[in-house]
Amino acid sequence: MASHKYVYEFTEGSRQMRELLGGKGAGIAEMTSILGGDRVPAGFTITTEACVAYMKRDRRYPDGLQEQIDAALGILEQRVGRELGDEQDPLLVSVRSGARESMPGMLDTVLNLGLSDRSVEGLARATGNEWFAYDSYRRLVQMFANVVRGVPEERLQAAIEDVKAARGVRLDTELSADDLRELVVRFKVLLEESTGEPFPQDPRAQLDAAVRAVFDSWRGDRAATYRRLNRIPDDWGTAVNVQQMVFGNKGNSSGSGVAFSRDEITGAPEPSGDFLINAQGEDVVSGVRNTKDIAELAELMPAVHADLMDILRTLERHYRDMQDTEFTVEDGRLFMLQTRNAKRPAQAALRFACDAVDEKLLSEAEALLTLDPAALEGLLHPTFDPAVQYSVLTHGVPASPGAAQGAVVFTAPDAVAAAELGRAVVLVRPFTEAEDVAGFHAAAGILTSEGGKASHAALVARGMGRPCVVGASELDVDLEARQIRVGDTVVREGEHLGIDGTTGAVTTDEVPVAAPEMSDAFRRVLGWADKHRRLDVHANADTPDDARTARRFGANGIGLCRTEHMFMASDRVPKMRAMILASTVEGRRAALDELLPLQQGDFEGLFEVMAGRPVTVRLLDPPLHEFLPSRVELSVELAQARHDAPHEVPALERLLERVTALEETNPMLGTRGCRLGILHPEIYEMQVRAIARAARAVRERTGRAPELEVMIPLVNYEAELEVVRRLVDRVAGEEGLQSGVDYRVGTMIELPRACLLADRIAHHADFFSFGTNDLTQTGLGFSRDDIEGRILGRYIDVGILDRSPFETIDVPGIGQLLRMGAWLGRTTRRDLTLGVCGEHGGDPESIAFFHRSGIDYVSCSPYRVPVARVAAAQAAIREPVHWG
Amino acid sequence: MASHKYVYEFTEGSRQMRELLGGKGAGIAEMTSILGGDRVPAGFTITTEACVAYMKRDRRYPDGLQEQIDAALGILEQRVGRELGDEQDPLLVSVRSGARESMPGMLDTVLNLGLSDRSVEGLARATGNEWFAYDSYRRLVQMFANVVRGVPEERLQAAIEDVKAARGVRLDTELSADDLRELVVRFKVLLEESTGEPFPQDPRAQLDAAVRAVFDSWRGDRAATYRRLNRIPDDWGTAVNVQQMVFGNKGNSSGSGVAFSRDEITGAPEPSGDFLINAQGEDVVSGVRNTKDIAELAELMPAVHADLMDILRTLERHYRDMQDTEFTVEDGRLFMLQTRNAKRPAQAALRFACDAVDEKLLSEAEALLTLDPAALEGLLHPTFDPAVQYSVLTHGVPASPGAAQGAVVFTAPDAVAAAELGRAVVLVRPFTEAEDVAGFHAAAGILTSEGGKASHAALVARGMGRPCVVGASELDVDLEARQIRVGDTVVREGEHLGIDGTTGAVTTDEVPVAAPEMSDAFRRVLGWADKHRRLDVHANADTPDDARTARRFGANGIGLCRTEHMFMASDRVPKMRAMILASTVEGRRAALDELLPLQQGDFEGLFEVMAGRPVTVRLLDPPLHEFLPSRVELSVELAQARHDAPHEVPALERLLERVTALEETNPMLGTRGCRLGILHPEIYEMQVRAIARAARAVRERTGRAPELEVMIPLVNYEAELEVVRRLVDRVAGEEGLQSGVDYRVGTMIELPRACLLADRIAHHADFFSFGTNDLTQTGLGFSRDDIEGRILGRYIDVGILDRSPFETIDVPGIGQLLRMGAWLGRTTRRDLTLGVCGEHGGDPESIAFFHRSGIDYVSCSPYRVPVARVAAAQAAIREPVHWG
Repeated sequence: MASHKYVYEFTEGSRQMRELLGGKGAGIAEMTSILGGDRVPAGFTITTEACVAYMKRDRRYPDGLQEQIDAALGILEQRVGRELGDEQDPLLVSVRSGARESMPGMLDTVLNLGLSDRSVEGLARATGNEWFAYDSYRRLVQMFANVVRGVPEERLQAAIEDVKAARGVRLDTELSADDLRELVVRFKVLLEESTGEPFPQDPRAQLDAAVRAVFDSWRGDRAATYRRLNRIPDDWGTAVNVQQMVFGNKGNSSGSGVAFSRDEITGAPEPSGDFLINAQGEDVVSGVRNTKDIAELAELMPAVHADLMDILRTLERHYRDMQDTEFTVEDGRLFMLQTRNAKRPAQAALRFACDAVDEKLLSEAEALLTLDPAALEGLLHPTFDPAVQYSVLTHGVPASPGAAQGAVVFTAPDAVAAAELGRAVVLVRPFTEAEDVAGFHAAAGILTSEGGKASHAALVARGMGRPCVVGASELDVDLEARQIRVGDTVVREGEHLGIDGTTGAVTTDEVPVAAPEMSDAFRRVLGWADKHRRLDVHANADTPDDARTARRFGANGIGLCRTEHMFMASDRVPKMRAMILASTVEGRRAALDELLPLQQGDFEGLFEVMAGRPVTVRLLDPPLHEFLPSRVELSVELAQARHDAPHEVPALERLLERVTALEETNPMLGTRGCRLGILHPEIYEMQVRAIARAARAVRERTGRAPELEVMIPLVNYEAELEVVRRLVDRVAGEEGLQSGVDYRVGTMIELPRACLLADRIAHHADFFSFGTNDLTQTGLGFSRDDIEGRILGRYIDVGILDRSPFETIDVPGIGQLLRMGAWLGRTTRRDLTLGVCGEHGGDPESIAFFHRSGIDYVSCSPYRVPVARVAAAQAAIREPVHWG
Repeated sequence: MASHKYVYEFTEGSRQMRELLGGKGAGIAEMTSILGGDRVPAGFTITTEACVAYMKRDRRYPDGLQEQIDAALGILEQRVGRELGDEQDPLLVSVRSGARESMPGMLDTVLNLGLSDRSVEGLARATGNEWFAYDSYRRLVQMFANVVRGVPEERLQAAIEDVKAARGVRLDTELSADDLRELVVRFKVLLEESTGEPFPQDPRAQLDAAVRAVFDSWRGDRAATYRRLNRIPDDWGTAVNVQQMVFGNKGNSSGSGVAFSRDEITGAPEPSGDFLINAQGEDVVSGVRNTKDIAELAELMPAVHADLMDILRTLERHYRDMQDTEFTVEDGRLFMLQTRNAKRPAQAALRFACDAVDEKLLSEAEALLTLDPAALEGLLHPTFDPAVQYSVLTHGVPASPGAAQGAVVFTAPDAVAAAELGRAVVLVRPFTEAEDVAGFHAAAGILTSEGGKASHAALVARGMGRPCVVGASELDVDLEARQIRVGDTVVREGEHLGIDGTTGAVTTDEVPVAAPEMSDAFRRVLGWADKHRRLDVHANADTPDDARTARRFGANGIGLCRTEHMFMASDRVPKMRAMILASTVEGRRAALDELLPLQQGDFEGLFEVMAGRPVTVRLLDPPLHEFLPSRVELSVELAQARHDAPHEVPALERLLERVTALEETNPMLGTRGCRLGILHPEIYEMQVRAIARAARAVRERTGRAPELEVMIPLVNYEAELEVVRRLVDRVAGEEGLQSGVDYRVGTMIELPRACLLADRIAHHADFFSFGTNDLTQTGLGFSRDDIEGRILGRYIDVGILDRSPFETIDVPGIGQLLRMGAWLGRTTRRDLTLGVCGEHGGDPESIAFFHRSGIDYVSCSPYRVPVARVAAAQAAIREPVHWG
């Protein structure tokens, strides 16, 4: 009985056979079939089925596998004309794993397999290069010991360091052939000490051990964790690829290089790349020697160059994307070792997309799919002139992209004062709080010494598109002395500072800043995106400035206007505080009456910019104590006043009493959102009145009102929405507006209960907007402020998470809640509008999920709007199904 | 064609016809059929169907309704021998609403309907009592104006106050017949002013208006809100009951009274009650005249008394429960107006249950259903001797039942010190925090001036069964002067104070305290409960003392041992702080090594008490900063030290820095639970080692180990549980314990995500314990500490909630999550044990839900264990279905 086929030569496979041959095996086979067997070093793939059978049989080869490997090896030897283990001119092979999807944690690569104490001498002779031969052997023994047999890499490295120290050299390449010989001996000893077994001199035994090690690594801890995290089934198994080694270091008719099918920096249609004569691939990458531009290959090896250009075109047409290849020339013969879609900067990606469409290489939809939407955001922010070198004072966490510079200020009021004088400033704080937000508006950029990507400073800055660097921990911010210190450098208030929010660099140099301009290619691509996407894209914007930016980047409306930011302006805070500190409803109303015209003015500005388009205004959401000074500061001030200024004590005591009364243990879960509106209806009344009057004023002035939506935050119970909606309709009615005609009323869905009972809530809502930030906080019990700095890094290290759930939505948990909410809401009202206004609204992977979940629009920060447009188009192209 | 039947005489109905006749109508009909038509004032019920038809026809009577009412009224007049509106001796009737379920917010009652300017004179003559006649008329006009026509009650009351002031009298009963006549006039004027319509003199018009008003009230706001909250369909409608009025104030052969079928205080089998000769029902209740004991009726009206005794027995046998009745004797004729199951103190309820079983009135299961489980808890706590009168200093919120007294102390260490000297103390604080918990153990009772039923003090005290009064807001607690002030009374440290946690009373008197004793009846009832219930009952207990209490009250195991409470003892806190403040892992390990033997000792004590039974130990859960001083206090101390004690500044600064670093914005959602264990594995290692060593030590010493369960808190991700479980198994293995044999490992399910993905989590769990407290906090986005004091009251007022979701589980939201978690968990492991350890585990209504949801056990505070046993039995009797 013929046994099952477990081994495929590269010439037998194709990229359609990914499940059987793994990603790498299918890729090599594909390239072999495009370019012909002579261009790709020969070899064979042991299938994933072989691995599965091996695991099922308790780590024994299935029937026929050994024979098939032997046969394939025989064919390979014949094809190459060398034999594995030959003592004169041995065939060497590499052994690599390759699962259906690329999987970190799997055994990676064993190179140079086939060398032994005898054949290494043959290789030295055949290549005329003893150093090369022993370096190859040393690498084989090292990789075998570590990767196949599990000897800790530290112990192997320690041996290298030992020998280098004894020779007084710094680099591996400075070791002599004899040194390498010694290393081989040392590695063998280490291997035998650790495992009790010597390094196998029989190349067949080496191969057998390597194949088994690849199979076994599928069951390893790291691979298992990775699979669990990525929901890869345990029973896929991995394939094993055995491939002839070729060498670019056999003399001046040999060489190695990398080549791109187009310019990898600009995207221009000319191929680019680097190469080295008489060198191996890793030398090109390591930068030990200065590489030559690929154009020079035309002079040195004209035939090879012509072949290469031809191959690049062929591969690009075949893969329908810009290619990044590795090649080796062995004795004048060109081998292609790898091809993959080229990573490229955003600007180059846009150029390729447009050129590919013009060249009819790709359709618009296909061209859109070649883009990385997240990378596009960087093109919209100012940057330091890339032509200028500057000295870096320190680095922090790049938190909001773009470059900014100006005079250092340390407080929000100082930033505001400087802005009024037309001066550019950089606001520097240890960390920021709600009351600093006015300073964000006024500053060119923000720099903090504490916090991470999810700190208050980072979030607010990203929302406004202000460049921001956080967590620059070398920075000692002395607020009292009004200076910054980094090592010996001191920067005082008013002195110059620059930050690059894309790289995290901080500098005292004056670097020219280049203003961003949206390229024609960018505009063209966005035009395609708008034709293909089903999701509408709105922006989160609180000011007319934000709204103008949002419009400029193509937002079709404002999906979230956070009215609280309007109260944080410096002229508002005292009035807001007076309102909060009022001990009677009358006192509160009087303070609110003063705030009303200001808030109305804010809305008028916003509505004028957005006239005729949707504007969703969220009623006050944060707890009131965010507008008050902190209890710690006040307590300290009071303690000092008892010593220094007794006359101030009574007023401070009163303030402290009120602040203490309003303080909450878990403000995120406390008196905020509609709870606040139900507790103090007069606040929401004022807001609704301001909104309604502004809408009327703008309609009268411009003839066009916005498509007004009033949004009620943090609803749990149907009755909450009912009560607040009644208030909204009453007050709007008093101001002459009619529900359903002049405005609609809806709610944030941002609590797990609201998702579970969305059918009831939908009875009182014209729209839902999923607040995925708070839904993530409550659904996971994760306080973003607390978790991102402390827990997240650890969780990623341990393998529990692979990224922050605040960046990309946690699909199985929070995504499931969102889908329930969407589905239940629509069971009550088929025409319910569904939006997402959390930060996930600007994250491409999350956008794809929202598309699949039947959401109508996402709302994100203005600078993320183009990202969202492209991501939404990609989602629609990949999954054209319509959810209903 | 005969029209649909919309009107039923009382003689036609029964209690099975509740849907059609409403609860009240069906009840009167039932009593009529048991006692015969002569014992119950006659009348008829207009059906709920009539109401529904009326609403559907846009507030018009359906065909035939008017005719049927007329006919029923004719029969009533004939039966009674009087006519509505008769000018000599008129028939008077009451009109009452009655929906399928009793519903606040519905129009309640119009009495004396049928009186007019003329018939009132007839009534005066017929009863020989002009005052009575005009008082009846005044009440009719007042009720008609207010209830039927919506004239505000304040305006009607103002008229009464006006007339009383003019006469210089205080009580309504002091008004003369002329005064009442004047009130009738005034009410009529008010009615006409308000509605433009006069008071109808035609009794048929009065009746018609009252019937329509009842129908219309079904659509009123309050009734609609109530229905929404209680999920009562809008289309049920309400019935209307029209009943003859009878009068006990027609002279000495008339009277009114209330009678219980057994002694309503003790439950003893002799009927009890009170009555008044020549009086109406409301006089008996109002206490204006001194009532006579029902026994005296035997002398005054022997036949009536005999009839009444007979009727009480009949009703009790019929309703199979102790009855609370109202009766009226009109001219020697006994009428029964109402009967209902009697409310009774817990002790009487137990006695009735036992007697009823002995008398073969009820089966054990039926007897169990007559009990209010929540009331039983009060029998387990010490009480002030009810025979002793004492003066009350002030009242607070009764937060944990039982009486306590002792010397006042103001700090936890003082309480501990006093306890060591054997002195009883009451710990008085403005509010309490985690570090005060040691003081709770030491104190006889706890009193705070702030906080509500869900404050820290209330929760901890209830958990320990310590009497506690919170929120005694008149109390001025001066910690510096070490004294309490209430008005002019000052109580200093060391002086005597008593509190009653059942009533909220605070006293300076020395009142004898009666120790609780579990009665034989109680024991017997609990024995029945254990036979019937399917839910197992465990207790939350952290100390051997708690565990003994739990055993005494019948807990079958410990469902939650919170190991953090062990660290809060005064000898542990410094070591715990040293551990937290350690800047290196080594430093932390050294501190943990000191804590290990202490914690081991704690566990040994607990395990000895519970040997052979389940003990579920939860690894450390709260955030570490709970063990540190507060940032506010430290900051103030530091500010003062800068003035007064500069040498202390550096140490304080270091401490403050660490406290600040650990501080979290939302600690509830921060670095706690298994997150802590993953961040600092050495803490969980120490705990597991202590648990394992204690289990072995107890097994060796006593021959019996507990059924040990290690519980990992706050799990969101499968991988979290996997990582911590691996740690537990490793350390337990090092200590010689074997997973699955010597212990099991499980997790708290207390986050929404965990419920939604419980199938994955169950792969690594032997049991789930639903932490419904935290699940409620996260699922609703409600910080318990913040919400209960601020939002809850308002929400109940507005009609959004009818009670705290922390008291009774929010079934549609949090209950849905729990059911998903239970169901998904069991899809992975059919034998997964499911428990509930939130406070809901001691709430009868929640227990019924857990029973229905397939939960295996509840765990509650030791004092709630008997409550839970009875509630679980009731649930099983009512819904014997088994969930699978």
